[in-house]
Amino acid sequence: MTTSILSGMRPTGKLHLGNYFGALKNWVDLQEQGFQCHYFVADWHAITTKHDETENIRQNSIDMVKDWLAAGLDPERSTMFVQSLVKQHAELFTVLAMITPVGWLERCPTYKEQKEQLGETRTANYGFLGYPVLQSADILLYSADFVPVGEDQLPHLEITREIARRFNYLYGNVLKEPQAKLTAVPKLAGTDGRKMSKSYGNVIDMSEEADDLWQKVRQMVTDPARVRKTDPGDPSICSVFDYHKLFSDATQCSELSDGCVNASIGCMDCKKQLCAHMESFIEPMRQRRAGISDKDAMEILHRGSHNAALRAEELMVEVRKSMRLDMECIR
Amino acid sequence: MTTSILSGMRPTGKLHLGNYFGALKNWVDLQEQGFQCHYFVADWHAITTKHDETENIRQNSIDMVKDWLAAGLDPERSTMFVQSLVKQHAELFTVLAMITPVGWLERCPTYKEQKEQLGETRTANYGFLGYPVLQSADILLYSADFVPVGEDQLPHLEITREIARRFNYLYGNVLKEPQAKLTAVPKLAGTDGRKMSKSYGNVIDMSEEADDLWQKVRQMVTDPARVRKTDPGDPSICSVFDYHKLFSDATQCSELSDGCVNASIGCMDCKKQLCAHMESFIEPMRQRRAGISDKDAMEILHRGSHNAALRAEELMVEVRKSMRLDMECIR
Repeated sequence: MTTSILSGMRPTGKLHLGNYFGALKNWVDLQEQGFQCHYFVADWHAITTKHDETENIRQNSIDMVKDWLAAGLDPERSTMFVQSLVKQHAELFTVLAMITPVGWLERCPTYKEQKEQLGETRTANYGFLGYPVLQSADILLYSADFVPVGEDQLPHLEITREIARRFNYLYGNVLKEPQAKLTAVPKLAGTDGRKMSKSYGNVIDMSEEADDLWQKVRQMVTDPARVRKTDPGDPSICSVFDYHKLFSDATQCSELSDGCVNASIGCMDCKKQLCAHMESFIEPMRQRRAGISDKDAMEILHRGSHNAALRAEELMVEVRKSMRLDMECIR
Repeated sequence: MTTSILSGMRPTGKLHLGNYFGALKNWVDLQEQGFQCHYFVADWHAITTKHDETENIRQNSIDMVKDWLAAGLDPERSTMFVQSLVKQHAELFTVLAMITPVGWLERCPTYKEQKEQLGETRTANYGFLGYPVLQSADILLYSADFVPVGEDQLPHLEITREIARRFNYLYGNVLKEPQAKLTAVPKLAGTDGRKMSKSYGNVIDMSEEADDLWQKVRQMVTDPARVRKTDPGDPSICSVFDYHKLFSDATQCSELSDGCVNASIGCMDCKKQLCAHMESFIEPMRQRRAGISDKDAMEILHRGSHNAALRAEELMVEVRKSMRLDMECIR
């Protein structure tokens, strides 16, 4: 049987390059490596912390999925779907709620962390406390072998594994314990050097227009000690050079590094080269994205959700049977 | 539009007379009064406190529903269904989880009470904490106008009303705030004078066989001060007389009361009369029950669950639309 992968993203709208290198590129790679991939729009999860901001969830889902497709996800090979359109997610969430101790959830490291970061109104709800239960349902519903995660998400996956073990102990061996697929992803900072994030206004979109791209690149933060072109720079503390490492080849990087240290190339020239390389990276994705209508994306999600529900229902049949909640057991 | 009623029972198996007079009789009355009734087997609720005892849930559901039918519930007029067979219950539970503060649940009077009564293992799970959220979903899904409750359940219904108000405030006026339908029900004690309960072994089943009925009635507790037939008795502290008030007519009760106080009738005679009256009450229900196979009950539940799901889905369409989670909003 093919090894299966499950991962999701909250519907935040158009994706930026931080999203691309942090997760989406890896999704595409996994598809290309022949894994059976399920990728979903985690709209329930978005509502766990933003129940009062649902107006744009659907348009944001569409905008995001167009970037998935632009990046190379292929609906013929990867199932792309919307969490809330597959009722089995809510159903398995309800089942797992019955066997998950509240203490496991309260002790989850991200729970306290997020409560502090996001404040009481965003994290007071029962659904937020149960977020790891819902996430477990997402993963276990597709018998995922691997879940691509960063180090920081390991505790969540551990809860999923514990919940699966508890279910299997109580009712029989039905749920597959997923493994973490740790992937080293390059961190791409925002144009101001901080974490790339929409809320900081420092993002470069995956589909950034060429003119806007240049406006953003030219304002990027470089070595602050390099005031004049004749001052030697330090590439190791320069955001622009970090970008070159992703968008320029090794020879180019080495030449630019030397030119910076020797003060033989100015920051503007360096940025122009970066912009050109970024544009040749972005341009094909932007083109591909332009060829996809909202309706196309929606149809792909509809079809994907339908297929995901068929797969999920197979698992739920086993879940109900093992818990003796099926109707057949009394015939 | 017809006024609608929603109520549920945990699948405990065959019902006893305490269940009948405490709830089921009222259900039948409401049906006869022409309300649009939805009555469900609350199997998810059973699992909130008994996740490790699911083996008999289905057979218990069938055994219970046969008593519903024997008592006079009519599938042509009342929708009888199984909670877990209607996925929309889990779906609305998931939605409402996102807008219900954990504090409301922790402050729920029955929460602490049950934690003390049932102990930690039965009440430690996330699903138990969220029990009032699931119950709210059950009620709101059918836009129930009235929920038949006892005084003690009023706090739960208040949470349901608060959740509905919160949803309507956030997303628009979709959920109907249910009203309590307080019904005075006669308390029927068990054969030992304590609360009638399977765990005390003091129940008389709705379908009790005639011989067993007599064995149980003859051992019933009477006025303990009346040792000999010649001792005058006090009907006001006699369980048997409490039963007469339900199963014998006013004239009979008055004669029996006099006979007891005057010591002109013995406890055995009094019990024989009771047994005869109970038998003529039970007999037609027992007959009706014998004519219903497990398969009949199952088919009624299947059909009812199908119909309930259709009705529930109509509400969910409105819920999704108001939250802008439907796909149509981006066309």
